[in-house]
Amino acid sequence: MGNLYIGLVHYPVKNKRGDIVASAVTNLDIHDIARIAKTYSIAGFYIIQPMPSQKRLVKWIISHWTEGYGGEYNPIRAEAFDSIRLVDAIDDAIMEIRKETECPPVVVGTWAGYSGATIDYEEMSALIRTEIEPMLILLGTGFGMADEVQEICTYILEPIRGNGDYNHLPVRAAAAIILDRIRRTTQTD
Amino acid sequence: MGNLYIGLVHYPVKNKRGDIVASAVTNLDIHDIARIAKTYSIAGFYIIQPMPSQKRLVKWIISHWTEGYGGEYNPIRAEAFDSIRLVDAIDDAIMEIRKETECPPVVVGTWAGYSGATIDYEEMSALIRTEIEPMLILLGTGFGMADEVQEICTYILEPIRGNGDYNHLPVRAAAAIILDRIRRTTQTD
Repeated sequence: MGNLYIGLVHYPVKNKRGDIVASAVTNLDIHDIARIAKTYSIAGFYIIQPMPSQKRLVKWIISHWTEGYGGEYNPIRAEAFDSIRLVDAIDDAIMEIRKETECPPVVVGTWAGYSGATIDYEEMSALIRTEIEPMLILLGTGFGMADEVQEICTYILEPIRGNGDYNHLPVRAAAAIILDRIRRTTQTD
Repeated sequence: MGNLYIGLVHYPVKNKRGDIVASAVTNLDIHDIARIAKTYSIAGFYIIQPMPSQKRLVKWIISHWTEGYGGEYNPIRAEAFDSIRLVDAIDDAIMEIRKETECPPVVVGTWAGYSGATIDYEEMSALIRTEIEPMLILLGTGFGMADEVQEICTYILEPIRGNGDYNHLPVRAAAAIILDRIRRTTQTD
């Protein structure tokens, strides 16, 4: 239960043309994914963002909702924001989890259009249930994580497919669906 | 496949104090739920909003993304916006579906804290598979739909529970999880 982490990756990601860039933070991603992570008892929600101006923005949003007026007005939101951690790079998230759990995390990548070998949601649930190692699920922003991130992934998660050809879910919706699929299975066992 | 509709209800809903109000439209609700609905092949996404100023806003957003600059810049978003329909009241959505399908829809309500008798996701999937009647799933904004809406619901859907006590998902995330649970089961049959 306590060993599942997620990371929202803003670097390295692709832009519309396929160049590798650092993407800007979306306020709603932070709010929605924090609430989703809290609902599914995620141990930590990493915002992976190296740009100083963007990091300042994230810190401002977090402090507004945990210490500032937002936290007083909406204590339920403050509770969701508790699990947020801001780091510069994927490696920093991995190191922090390793330090916290005394074990390197299994890194699971997600790419909407991935066509190679993947792990499915039932296998993922089974892995989480064993709780031998912590797990870090990486979600990309922009037009998806750079391909080089695949090198550090132990598994790549089966892409979400709907019922038609349209395959453009917001990362917020993908986070909700992935955690529900993984945790819901765990819950009913 | 083609008989499932969703409605995002802005009136009648509760505010923080439990008063019945019309809630304001959230731009991101429209974008995210349109993309989620398109992914899961929903026949129509009703935005239920009676306030004239708010209706103008919704029309402006839709036309920007389907006819205006947004549609040219992002044709994939325009495709998602295709299924949006703006109506004043839940009854108008019901009447329109009845006209389109020549059958009154089964109305399914969703309340996060509902504790009475509910239908679960497997039963819902089975109902949709039969495709005898169209179905309209209503999602509340604000602090949830007014209790009086229960009178027109044939079923109330089992609330989404996570793995802890935190039960405050954004309506965008609830829409993603509900459609994935219902449609994913359908898909694997």
